Amino acid sequence: MAGQVERLRNYVGGKWVESESTAWEEIRNPATDEVLSLVPMSTKAEVDACVSAAAEAFPAWRNTPAVVRCRHLFQLKQLLEEKQAELARVITLEHGKEYRAALGEMRRLIEMVEVASGIPTLMMGDYSEQIAPRIDEYSIRVPLGVFAMIPPFNFPGMVPFWFMPWAVALGNTYIIKPNEQCPMTQQRLFELIDQVGFPPGVVNLINGGRDVATWLIQHPDIRGVSFVGSTQTARTVYRMCAEYGKRCQAQGGANNFLVVMPDVDLDAIMPNIMESCFGNSGQRCLAGGVVLGVGAVYEPLKEKFLEACRKLKVGCGLDEDTDLAPVVSRPALEKLHGAIERGIREGARLLLDGRGVKVAGYPNGYFLGPTVFEAEPGMHVFDEEVFGPVRCLKRVETLDEAISLINASRYGNAATIYTQNGAHAREFRYRVECGNVGINVGIAAPMAFYPFAGRKDSFFGDLHGQGKDVVDFFTDRKVVIERWLPEREVRERWF
Amino acid sequence: MAGQVERLRNYVGGKWVESESTAWEEIRNPATDEVLSLVPMSTKAEVDACVSAAAEAFPAWRNTPAVVRCRHLFQLKQLLEEKQAELARVITLEHGKEYRAALGEMRRLIEMVEVASGIPTLMMGDYSEQIAPRIDEYSIRVPLGVFAMIPPFNFPGMVPFWFMPWAVALGNTYIIKPNEQCPMTQQRLFELIDQVGFPPGVVNLINGGRDVATWLIQHPDIRGVSFVGSTQTARTVYRMCAEYGKRCQAQGGANNFLVVMPDVDLDAIMPNIMESCFGNSGQRCLAGGVVLGVGAVYEPLKEKFLEACRKLKVGCGLDEDTDLAPVVSRPALEKLHGAIERGIREGARLLLDGRGVKVAGYPNGYFLGPTVFEAEPGMHVFDEEVFGPVRCLKRVETLDEAISLINASRYGNAATIYTQNGAHAREFRYRVECGNVGINVGIAAPMAFYPFAGRKDSFFGDLHGQGKDVVDFFTDRKVVIERWLPEREVRERWF
Amino acid sequence: MAGQVERLRNYVGGKWVESESTAWEEIRNPATDEVLSLVPMSTKAEVDACVSAAAEAFPAWRNTPAVVRCRHLFQLKQLLEEKQAELARVITLEHGKEYRAALGEMRRLIEMVEVASGIPTLMMGDYSEQIAPRIDEYSIRVPLGVFAMIPPFNFPGMVPFWFMPWAVALGNTYIIKPNEQCPMTQQRLFELIDQVGFPPGVVNLINGGRDVATWLIQHPDIRGVSFVGSTQTARTVYRMCAEYGKRCQAQGGANNFLVVMPDVDLDAIMPNIMESCFGNSGQRCLAGGVVLGVGAVYEPLKEKFLEACRKLKVGCGLDEDTDLAPVVSRPALEKLHGAIERGIREGARLLLDGRGVKVAGYPNGYFLGPTVFEAEPGMHVFDEEVFGPVRCLKRVETLDEAISLINASRYGNAATIYTQNGAHAREFRYRVECGNVGINVGIAAPMAFYPFAGRKDSFFGDLHGQGKDVVDFFTDRKVVIERWLPEREVRERWF
Amino acid sequence: MAGQVERLRNYVGGKWVESESTAWEEIRNPATDEVLSLVPMSTKAEVDACVSAAAEAFPAWRNTPAVVRCRHLFQLKQLLEEKQAELARVITLEHGKEYRAALGEMRRLIEMVEVASGIPTLMMGDYSEQIAPRIDEYSIRVPLGVFAMIPPFNFPGMVPFWFMPWAVALGNTYIIKPNEQCPMTQQRLFELIDQVGFPPGVVNLINGGRDVATWLIQHPDIRGVSFVGSTQTARTVYRMCAEYGKRCQAQGGANNFLVVMPDVDLDAIMPNIMESCFGNSGQRCLAGGVVLGVGAVYEPLKEKFLEACRKLKVGCGLDEDTDLAPVVSRPALEKLHGAIERGIREGARLLLDGRGVKVAGYPNGYFLGPTVFEAEPGMHVFDEEVFGPVRCLKRVETLDEAISLINASRYGNAATIYTQNGAHAREFRYRVECGNVGINVGIAAPMAFYPFAGRKDSFFGDLHGQGKDVVDFFTDRKVVIERWLPEREVRERWF
Repeated sequence: MAGQVERLRNYVGGKWVESESTAWEEIRNPATDEVLSLVPMSTKAEVDACVSAAAEAFPAWRNTPAVVRCRHLFQLKQLLEEKQAELARVITLEHGKEYRAALGEMRRLIEMVEVASGIPTLMMGDYSEQIAPRIDEYSIRVPLGVFAMIPPFNFPGMVPFWFMPWAVALGNTYIIKPNEQCPMTQQRLFELIDQVGFPPGVVNLINGGRDVATWLIQHPDIRGVSFVGSTQTARTVYRMCAEYGKRCQAQGGANNFLVVMPDVDLDAIMPNIMESCFGNSGQRCLAGGVVLGVGAVYEPLKEKFLEACRKLKVGCGLDEDTDLAPVVSRPALEKLHGAIERGIREGARLLLDGRGVKVAGYPNGYFLGPTVFEAEPGMHVFDEEVFGPVRCLKRVETLDEAISLINASRYGNAATIYTQNGAHAREFRYRVECGNVGINVGIAAPMAFYPFAGRKDSFFGDLHGQGKDVVDFFTDRKVVIERWLPEREVRERWF
Repeated sequence: MAGQVERLRNYVGGKWVESESTAWEEIRNPATDEVLSLVPMSTKAEVDACVSAAAEAFPAWRNTPAVVRCRHLFQLKQLLEEKQAELARVITLEHGKEYRAALGEMRRLIEMVEVASGIPTLMMGDYSEQIAPRIDEYSIRVPLGVFAMIPPFNFPGMVPFWFMPWAVALGNTYIIKPNEQCPMTQQRLFELIDQVGFPPGVVNLINGGRDVATWLIQHPDIRGVSFVGSTQTARTVYRMCAEYGKRCQAQGGANNFLVVMPDVDLDAIMPNIMESCFGNSGQRCLAGGVVLGVGAVYEPLKEKFLEACRKLKVGCGLDEDTDLAPVVSRPALEKLHGAIERGIREGARLLLDGRGVKVAGYPNGYFLGPTVFEAEPGMHVFDEEVFGPVRCLKRVETLDEAISLINASRYGNAATIYTQNGAHAREFRYRVECGNVGINVGIAAPMAFYPFAGRKDSFFGDLHGQGKDVVDFFTDRKVVIERWLPEREVRERWF
Repeated sequence: MAGQVERLRNYVGGKWVESESTAWEEIRNPATDEVLSLVPMSTKAEVDACVSAAAEAFPAWRNTPAVVRCRHLFQLKQLLEEKQAELARVITLEHGKEYRAALGEMRRLIEMVEVASGIPTLMMGDYSEQIAPRIDEYSIRVPLGVFAMIPPFNFPGMVPFWFMPWAVALGNTYIIKPNEQCPMTQQRLFELIDQVGFPPGVVNLINGGRDVATWLIQHPDIRGVSFVGSTQTARTVYRMCAEYGKRCQAQGGANNFLVVMPDVDLDAIMPNIMESCFGNSGQRCLAGGVVLGVGAVYEPLKEKFLEACRKLKVGCGLDEDTDLAPVVSRPALEKLHGAIERGIREGARLLLDGRGVKVAGYPNGYFLGPTVFEAEPGMHVFDEEVFGPVRCLKRVETLDEAISLINASRYGNAATIYTQNGAHAREFRYRVECGNVGINVGIAAPMAFYPFAGRKDSFFGDLHGQGKDVVDFFTDRKVVIERWLPEREVRERWF
Repeated sequence: MAGQVERLRNYVGGKWVESESTAWEEIRNPATDEVLSLVPMSTKAEVDACVSAAAEAFPAWRNTPAVVRCRHLFQLKQLLEEKQAELARVITLEHGKEYRAALGEMRRLIEMVEVASGIPTLMMGDYSEQIAPRIDEYSIRVPLGVFAMIPPFNFPGMVPFWFMPWAVALGNTYIIKPNEQCPMTQQRLFELIDQVGFPPGVVNLINGGRDVATWLIQHPDIRGVSFVGSTQTARTVYRMCAEYGKRCQAQGGANNFLVVMPDVDLDAIMPNIMESCFGNSGQRCLAGGVVLGVGAVYEPLKEKFLEACRKLKVGCGLDEDTDLAPVVSRPALEKLHGAIERGIREGARLLLDGRGVKVAGYPNGYFLGPTVFEAEPGMHVFDEEVFGPVRCLKRVETLDEAISLINASRYGNAATIYTQNGAHAREFRYRVECGNVGINVGIAAPMAFYPFAGRKDSFFGDLHGQGKDVVDFFTDRKVVIERWLPEREVRERWF
């Protein structure tokens, strides 16, 4: 790749298309700061052409029986299996994350395709015979047309697949606008989509930034939008979709709490806590952000937490023994430095400082070592999502206090309790106002057949990604009430 | 009731409360123009108190097992059965509609309560054992808090019951703001609700107009809003809810087509067409607005249609032989006159003129006789919802032309075909972009266990009222991923 | 009732009918040995007439819309609410059980009626549009005809209601043959059924014993049989139904284990254990039969168990402070005495002997005080269901040993673990081969919306009573594949 | 293959095993009478070893997460796609059927694997929070152990796949005993299964006849049996399974009616009728057996039917232009000759005689040309399943008469109506007592996501093959009721 920088293309109507845009942005390797590729900020005309291609493909695709539509997914799954290692490498290259995290992302991506292959059953409507004399009623799940997806940078492969496979299996046509910070993974994925041979226009890729996103949302032929990103943008997207009368599901930010109860075996749970706090370079909407120790467990928890942090190997994502990879970009790194400084300024106690970490061989990487505060509510570092390896610890006296702290947060994505005690787990699960709850599971990521269920400022909408929710989001229910007037012969029998 | 005008009250926190508002509006009997009651435009403080009562009632109500919650519905159903005739009379009094239409409204209202009693089964989440070694995953349908309902005037009893019984059976608490033109029916219904003995604050009634609606939508403790009314307001409500990050389902207007194929027995279907076009004083979002005759059937259809119209008995809703009752208010009547005049001005051919109809004994009623145009697309009377007994006829040459006309409309509430031919019915049902489809059924009103499924400008949102849709709307899915670390004894067995 | 003994009647085709049988059996009050009533062993001709009535009622009942059918259940629920105290009294009179147990039975009976009222939703089939070009497919749940129920004596009211309300709500017609030891409760229940006004023949009652049961099973117009009773008879019924090509669900006996882990608070769980072991006079297929203490908890468990047993007040079921009521009949009492003697003979250690208990005022009652053995596998009292207040204790060293013992039993009805430890509970629940599992719940009785799920020798069949299972049992799925040949006009568009 | 006859093997515990049986039967090519292979009648010891292998594989396979289990199906689907042409050739070789019918069989076989891949969603149990204060209840679908399949000869590839993919995806282990007349297709299919690398013992193949089937049914480790074949054997299998307390689903014979209404376009439907009556050599349990013409349509129907029959090209299944291939065996051919002779003897009018047909190049093939009777109820050829190209015509006067004839049959597999009239189709579908109903579809074969739904003597059991039914058949529902006693801290909050 050296010497020659790839210019990313759009995939529209079944064809690879060069953008005629004059605005291109550089994609850099977070471990080396080298330019990997250039991504176009597509023009409004290109967005319109993309939506048109998708809209034109819709009627015939809706006409195609669901089992036939799904066969494309079976093929895609096969190709993904073959290429997963290669794709994971691309993820690490552009995003920076540990290669094993990238592989994990690919596994979940493939699971989405697998589960969406079950659409013929999931798409069934209902049937009721004889709701009144000689009248039957039934409902049909019908696809709606063109949908679009606007993803974040942190899972450049997986997030669009929380939606796309379901949308197209259900008979809609689809447009993905990759995140402009990490657009290469979708580029590679679309090479496989191209091989599968979906009818032209069924699945489309259009590169760009905020403008492209806005044009998509506003386009009259887009029936709904799935968004994953910051709370602020999620809110904007939700409002803008409503303005145009559209469906929307918008996932926002998060600030997830891990609660450690006194009855746990700290050594047994620590690897899970580390993975939750620092995996994927700490850039996960399900990452543990604040670790609460209940009562006397707090001191040993703190000690073992810091000890485990110190053992984390910071390095390039592609190196096998790396535990903590660089963050996605220099601005992201600078934002994290800012958050640390603000933490200090606001009085949080810095227990471990990851700034200034050096990684041999990668002098220009966007590295930050594990950084740990002891902090309190009201401080920015405690209250807000810090997207990177900066975490807070805090002692609380009771489970009740822990739950109150969690429910006081404006976010409601995920929360985890570590305990062996069934009563505590149930109490936690029942009261905590988060959509995804972990019991001794630090990253409460629902399987593909369950919804990815955030609440409060972590989600705007009523139907989540994945599972049966997304089936509802991508279809409407047409209700038919059917009565045939009795024919002569029938009439004689019936009346 | 003569001599003394009832002052309607609010029902908040389990108590009847007099509004301290200084703004009260008169409710008049459409058949006589007499004042029946006064409805308060409640104050912001009263709205706040109402939401507070509902919010405070929520935690204990959510804690109450679903089977226990449902027992309140069983009781309510019993009371409704006993009082249905009396309630129907109130509906006719304030709305004007034919008494048999009011009775029909009560039957459907009761059906909602019956079907919502099945919540223990409908509320089930999913459970998956062993999604990974020793890890289980499940989802729980959890209620969200306080929801509010803003209904239209045309079904003053039924429409709030498309939502309320489900909402509270699912563990939410609820606020109904009756339509300010017809608020008396809910007043009477809440007397039964009061008798049932829901815990204070679970179901609440607050009277008022647009201001009260807005304050409800904006209140931070309201989790979602169900609206039924005009498209313009539906759009506004949808946008406003999104602005505040809330759930919303907003039903708008409609303009429904009835397509008559040449193979039908006109005499057999004509009563059904009349009921669709003129029942409920023509003020139904599922009413037939435009009747399309395909090919040669048009002329005899027109003749029989006009003949049937002429036989309709215009009169007071309470009189037993009345086929067509007055419209809801003088302004509504004036609006209809305006629509007729505009129709004439735009070139529509007035086949039957209902203006100037006289009803013996009711000199002041808001009556309009059946009014029929021969009209074309592009004319207001053809394209837009005319809420009253003003209907259009048009000849088309093919089923294809009929479907194209329907799909060109900005509305997508309902459409009906009259035919005995299975192929035509299937073609119609498959292609027509409406949510509720009738096959030889002129008013395609889904049963309580099916969603009320409008599309396009007739509905904003993704989850409809009634049935499984409304269960999804009133709950969120909490996903739990549960792993217990192996205990010593277990550990020996497992590893 | 004194002086005059009621002669029970059959309820056939909507009418109360005196049996012409010459064989009548006495029903006695277990607390006093007084004769309460006489029950006829109906003749074969009477059975045939009963099936005919049900068969004739079927077509019109199937034609009746489900919502209308369910209205009969709503009414029945209302009557049951009003009469529940009175009915509970009848249960205690003929069965002997504590009045509060009888009231509990009535509550669960009513819950079945409530949940079966949700049939319109539960009965929905599936609908798939366009499974192939222009072809749709759907399934319809259709009722099958006449079903029959053969219940045990121990819940004379409730058990038939695990089935009947669902069966008739789904459109079948039904026959209950009450248990001949306790037939009075159904007699009273059918008085309410009579009041409800089901169409004649929809629900029928025919008294009798084994002969009547056999004639029902063999009758060509009976489509399926639900049975609850001993394993031996369940097996026979299952085989006999198969011989006649019929559906069958047959619940047999049970021997349920309660496992107490060392981490529990014995005082907190002891009331639950007592209720499990001795409630309903110990005559429950979900009763705890063997209590296993794991490790060191065994000795204190034994001590507290015996202490709690000694505090149980043996007495007449109608007396308010009675904890342990008489068993159902003198033969049942004798059988229990036999089991105790056999236990002693086989070497089980008798820790508490309930024989010879005296109850003041009830010199002739069939009383047995709580009787407790320390026993081992291989002994009859440990391995087999002892239907009455005779229980075993045993120490095991590990949870693993407890689970192995449970899985070695030929029964698989229910099993309970007492622990606060999530890992132990999960291990138990995952491995135990029983259908109904309690975690700190001594009587694992599924709610009406879940199946009553026995396994192994406790159940023969594949669809259980209650919930969605019983919906499947009482309906077949008719699958329709529908294609309309394109009409001329359509043809032009499609080809 | 010439010169050397393949000896078929068993596949047990993940290994190909030669049978030590001394009894082997010849498999012959129906078009040429040449011996293709030898199939062993396995010994009882071999059956026992096979069940043991499956039983041992069960616990680990149940432990394997469903998504992982399904990955084997995804792989299998891939291999099947690659080898389908080759496998279709094997089907034609051993069964004789037209190659395009064999390809069709392969397509449906693959569809089963595709749809069963959706098990993670289909296998979900239910979850209810707070069924009582602090008590939760849920149900888990658990696999049961080893199941066995006994198929017929007519779809040697597909029928076992109505069951196997679902059974193993759900966590059971499986044994297929191929039909001894056509065992080669499964032999080839298991070569692919072997490649997939299921854990040893998960899927097993054991060759043999009635003895092997009986040993399987009687083996204590077999939890249930799926059977497809004649009614007589189905009944026996059903009874025998019940005797051993097992689950059973047993499909029997059929005699399907095609009803032609006067409004149809005969030329348009005739190809569909021909395929229904003569496709797959007429050996299909969904084949049209009797064609009823209603009223005046009968004469032209008969004429066109006979004309179409005469155009059918009888030949070897591998020849591309063959419409009607040989039947499976010489005894089958002789049985058909016998049925024809009996038809003549009983007075049926032979309109077309297919006996004595000669096929150039295949002097020894088991050919029978299309044979058509005009017959009446009461004649064997009209009332009973004739498995081959012998069909009956009859005139009826009304749809009512047609339905009565159909419902008078002891079979209830399938029935089809040809009409464009919605009222007639609805009347037919509602009243006809068959499980699979076609509307203008001559072979009403449900898709993989619907049950294959026979009734009356065509099916014994309550859960059919395919779809959600088979998920229920292959799992039991374990119900858990969970309560955690409040811990101190929790207790303070709750009480």
